[in-house]
Amino acid sequence: MPQLRVRGISAEQMAAVSTDLVQEMGQICECGEDNFTIDVFHVTSVFGGRTVETYPFIEVAWFERGKEIRDRLAACITKHVQSQEIAEVEVAFTVYREEEYYVNGLPCG
Amino acid sequence: MPQLRVRGISAEQMAAVSTDLVQEMGQICECGEDNFTIDVFHVTSVFGGRTVETYPFIEVAWFERGKEIRDRLAACITKHVQSQEIAEVEVAFTVYREEEYYVNGLPCG
Amino acid sequence: MPQLRVRGISAEQMAAVSTDLVQEMGQICECGEDNFTIDVFHVTSVFGGRTVETYPFIEVAWFERGKEIRDRLAACITKHVQSQEIAEVEVAFTVYREEEYYVNGLPCG
Repeated sequence: MPQLRVRGISAEQMAAVSTDLVQEMGQICECGEDNFTIDVFHVTSVFGGRTVETYPFIEVAWFERGKEIRDRLAACITKHVQSQEIAEVEVAFTVYREEEYYVNGLPCG
Repeated sequence: MPQLRVRGISAEQMAAVSTDLVQEMGQICECGEDNFTIDVFHVTSVFGGRTVETYPFIEVAWFERGKEIRDRLAACITKHVQSQEIAEVEVAFTVYREEEYYVNGLPCG
Repeated sequence: MPQLRVRGISAEQMAAVSTDLVQEMGQICECGEDNFTIDVFHVTSVFGGRTVETYPFIEVAWFERGKEIRDRLAACITKHVQSQEIAEVEVAFTVYREEEYYVNGLPCG
């Protein structure tokens, strides 16, 4: 954690920005870079009766760190995605409570 | 938003209903049809030691609009899915808070 | 429900443990085994500029059953996953409220 769950952006595009993105996210969150994961989901999107390109979207799953960190993280992610000639991207945060998150069977809170 | 995150229903089936479904959802939510996305996730389901068909499930990610709209939206989605000869489907709602949702780096709330 | 949403563990590995896992989860949750679903998501993970193995992670989506059941369920899932020579796994719980969950168009609460 934080986990980035990506749709509508290719694994190649995310890989291209991943080193700088993770370094910068680690500075913003003041945590080690190996806490981050970036998972690109395979999806097929439909609209208007046919298959369409998937809208670029990243859900960040994390423990709550407050508005300032969240704003900076969203801006950081957006900047790196848009560097890949992706004009629009939406980023949303979903919060896990520490007592609901288990590492190797043990709760974090 | 709202986003439909689909499992256990094929992209072809969702595409077949997508035009009418999105039109009707736009009327229920009183928002433009281009706010909706329909993403079909590629998954493999297992049970009883083997691969099985994925249970039809749609998660709707949205900003809270209250019980009346939610009931109508769930009924609408269910009706269209069941028109594809899918007998059972479950629909669940997950809520994003506007201040946790960013469009091109800027928070919605 | 509960739904297990799996990443970074193969469908073959999950299938291999699924019978015992579901039986044990049914005992812990005191519910029928056919309430459980196990969906393995197809994802591509990236880190450090390249594709990497996906970190083993299972999200359990359920109605809240409290800390004791949650602790036991997390321990049960972790034990079965680690029996597949997977050293590390993280398990997180996400809660649906019954009034936000619809079976065939009708809310559960």
